[in-house]
Amino acid sequence: MSTPPATEATADVAPCCVLGETIDDGLAHDLAKVFKALGDPTRVKLMSLIAGSSDGEMCVCDLTEPVGLSQPTVSHHMKLLVEAGLVAREQRGRWAYYRPTIDTLAAAAKALNA
Amino acid sequence: MSTPPATEATADVAPCCVLGETIDDGLAHDLAKVFKALGDPTRVKLMSLIAGSSDGEMCVCDLTEPVGLSQPTVSHHMKLLVEAGLVAREQRGRWAYYRPTIDTLAAAAKALNA
Repeated sequence: MSTPPATEATADVAPCCVLGETIDDGLAHDLAKVFKALGDPTRVKLMSLIAGSSDGEMCVCDLTEPVGLSQPTVSHHMKLLVEAGLVAREQRGRWAYYRPTIDTLAAAAKALNA
Repeated sequence: MSTPPATEATADVAPCCVLGETIDDGLAHDLAKVFKALGDPTRVKLMSLIAGSSDGEMCVCDLTEPVGLSQPTVSHHMKLLVEAGLVAREQRGRWAYYRPTIDTLAAAAKALNA
């Protein structure tokens, strides 16, 4: 996902909120998807690891031990983070590497005036 | 909830992330609770309405129409937002009033480097 849903939609939110109107269904769905992806302690841990990585990315092979889960389980969680636009995935040889997508979460939070 | 879990825990996160370690179970649980509460389009809309209210608060009686749901259903959604520390509830006579809890969402996002 090259353009995170929350990022492109953020500009539409502030004016409607100021008027006290509800945001539209499509934007509400996109924002909920971002937050829902982080509504799980394991995915919070994975996101924290990737967002805090000194290399700017992490191999799936280095994500399994810190969360104590198998690689297929970690890959499932990572798929949800990728689909929400929170991380980007790159296959390099045998391993998948993940890096944080800048601004997706920040833009989603700002869309709710946070 | 007078002290949002994400706010008090934020200071613990940055150092651990820099080292590439996982955040602890308790913090991961607290953060996931905040995000999970917003992992639903209706609650995103309700949060947007309250966060964008010109009065700084909204009566439950004014939240039903914008989301097209009954008051019991809206109250159920609001209960989850209150439990996550995202809004504060005050009963005033017949109606409940909700105001956004400053910084809960912003702190949760920052805890993940967003």
